[in-house]
Amino acid sequence: MDQPHSNKKIILGHGSGGKLSAELIESLFLPAFRNEFLSPLGDQAVVTINGTRIAFTTDSYVVNPIFFPGGSIGDVAVNGTVNDLAVGGARPLYISAGVILEEGMPIDELERIVSDMKRACERAGVQLVTGDTKVVEKGKGDKIFINTSGIGVVDAEIDISPQRVRPGDKIIVNGPIGEHGIAIMSIREGLEFETEIQSDTAPLNHLVRDMLNVSKNIRWMRDPTRGGLSSSCNELAKSAQKGIVLYESEIPVPEAVKAACEILGLDPLYVANEGKLLAVVPADETDTILQAMHNNPHGKDACIIGEVVDDHHGFVLLKTTIGGSRVVDMLAGEQLPRIC
Amino acid sequence: MDQPHSNKKIILGHGSGGKLSAELIESLFLPAFRNEFLSPLGDQAVVTINGTRIAFTTDSYVVNPIFFPGGSIGDVAVNGTVNDLAVGGARPLYISAGVILEEGMPIDELERIVSDMKRACERAGVQLVTGDTKVVEKGKGDKIFINTSGIGVVDAEIDISPQRVRPGDKIIVNGPIGEHGIAIMSIREGLEFETEIQSDTAPLNHLVRDMLNVSKNIRWMRDPTRGGLSSSCNELAKSAQKGIVLYESEIPVPEAVKAACEILGLDPLYVANEGKLLAVVPADETDTILQAMHNNPHGKDACIIGEVVDDHHGFVLLKTTIGGSRVVDMLAGEQLPRIC
Repeated sequence: MDQPHSNKKIILGHGSGGKLSAELIESLFLPAFRNEFLSPLGDQAVVTINGTRIAFTTDSYVVNPIFFPGGSIGDVAVNGTVNDLAVGGARPLYISAGVILEEGMPIDELERIVSDMKRACERAGVQLVTGDTKVVEKGKGDKIFINTSGIGVVDAEIDISPQRVRPGDKIIVNGPIGEHGIAIMSIREGLEFETEIQSDTAPLNHLVRDMLNVSKNIRWMRDPTRGGLSSSCNELAKSAQKGIVLYESEIPVPEAVKAACEILGLDPLYVANEGKLLAVVPADETDTILQAMHNNPHGKDACIIGEVVDDHHGFVLLKTTIGGSRVVDMLAGEQLPRIC
Repeated sequence: MDQPHSNKKIILGHGSGGKLSAELIESLFLPAFRNEFLSPLGDQAVVTINGTRIAFTTDSYVVNPIFFPGGSIGDVAVNGTVNDLAVGGARPLYISAGVILEEGMPIDELERIVSDMKRACERAGVQLVTGDTKVVEKGKGDKIFINTSGIGVVDAEIDISPQRVRPGDKIIVNGPIGEHGIAIMSIREGLEFETEIQSDTAPLNHLVRDMLNVSKNIRWMRDPTRGGLSSSCNELAKSAQKGIVLYESEIPVPEAVKAACEILGLDPLYVANEGKLLAVVPADETDTILQAMHNNPHGKDACIIGEVVDDHHGFVLLKTTIGGSRVVDMLAGEQLPRIC
């Protein structure tokens, strides 16, 4: 941000989860609130209360449209917050819901969303324990925005942090990428594909539990939502100050997602997911962890897609299928506004 | 809600904090999520994690205008959540912030708001530990909506609950009512009064601590925000199944608020506050508690405004200055949209 702030306005890219989002947070929010819990900029903060490590996270959901193949804003609002807790190594327990409704929103649509939230809570095994409802005038909102915050417990032996990442560690993803973003975009653009692409929205806390049950040495996890795989890997490379190598040929991208990305001019590495996690694991425990993942429905397609290297620290390199390699940067502007 | 939901739409009154809000929550949210923590419908849920009672609360702030005499949406977003925790008997510790920005919002306004949030956190002694930023297209939001959630600890000996309220208990307020709502309305309506009315937005956790230091027998507390004094008293009467009597002559209403209410056709009992609390206390501890309150800047004008009676259970009666009495009902529709 080179211009003085006084001339500047918020643009859609500030909400992308990419470079502009990071700049806004680092130039504005972080200096104001800097503290030991916020500064790591994970998707959750871990605070210790009477000896118990409590993970605390928040996310506002503004996805448009509110209903899409595979789910709704209600599913995403619950699963997204559950997953932010889970990938930090926490067992999600309780969530809150703050709903901002636009005047004129049909109540039956609200009922469908609440019903989706209820089912998502049941699947994840969390309880919605507190809430708030506000209404804004027609034209001052967009049907419904949902904030969910969540709290969970991080067991004593768990230590998930970019500082634990070591060269030689493997990078795992639990399944095919790009489905959520493309499901949303196909609706918005009125595209029809031979195979309908469904959002992958899902709670990942049970999968994470299965992984942690077989290894206490998982270094780092993240759910690659806004900004996709590339943003999460870039955040990891920067905070761990290690190099990341991704193998393009190993990254699972469904054919339908590939086709849609070509039509829409998108790169699947930047497309949002809502039921995926990246994990950095020690090389010698990779097989054990993969086996545990394969036994869980949300991890049956888990695979190795890259590794951590002691080179090009802070950067992500993609080894392409045709044998070359290129730097994969963070998303600069806004690729897919309001994807979650 | 007599009509089938399928024909119905959200109206501004659903966000009023009054009857329509209660109906929406009771007919839609509560049946979906019913659990032991949510069902009491307090402003926070208290869950027990490893033996520690953790209070958890959430609120979305959509106040319009975002800057007003005495504060901004940033102050209210922090103080409101701090107060929801405090009146439940919790020591507020950590808060989250989920910000929804409208494309085109001037960044210098966002900076002012963040700066207000920072100062409010410092005054309350809480840390903002996790956050999220989303951006929606111009015309799909209104500059900024802020959700804050908060967690705090409820000490073992504290038991704040409507079930503890007994006939003969006194009802205390910590100072004059109606200022926040009128500060907002005066800006919206372009009214100028001889004395500028400032929002009372303030953190009440230190006041509550001072009160609990002198009495462990405080029965119940609530911050009368949306829907004002009357909505909070009605909620108490209903959940405690006791009668509430308020003495009009004892309720502190600043002259400027009275004058503005007359011009605007409002009843000060329904006007929102952002730095007030109601407390129900045992008659024989009232003096001690009032004394403690008077020593705190946020309680210097604390006074008794009513009592709990074993009559007209579930209802609030106002003994008027002219000697009559009338039932004070909950706000039916929307008196002051987007007041917080």
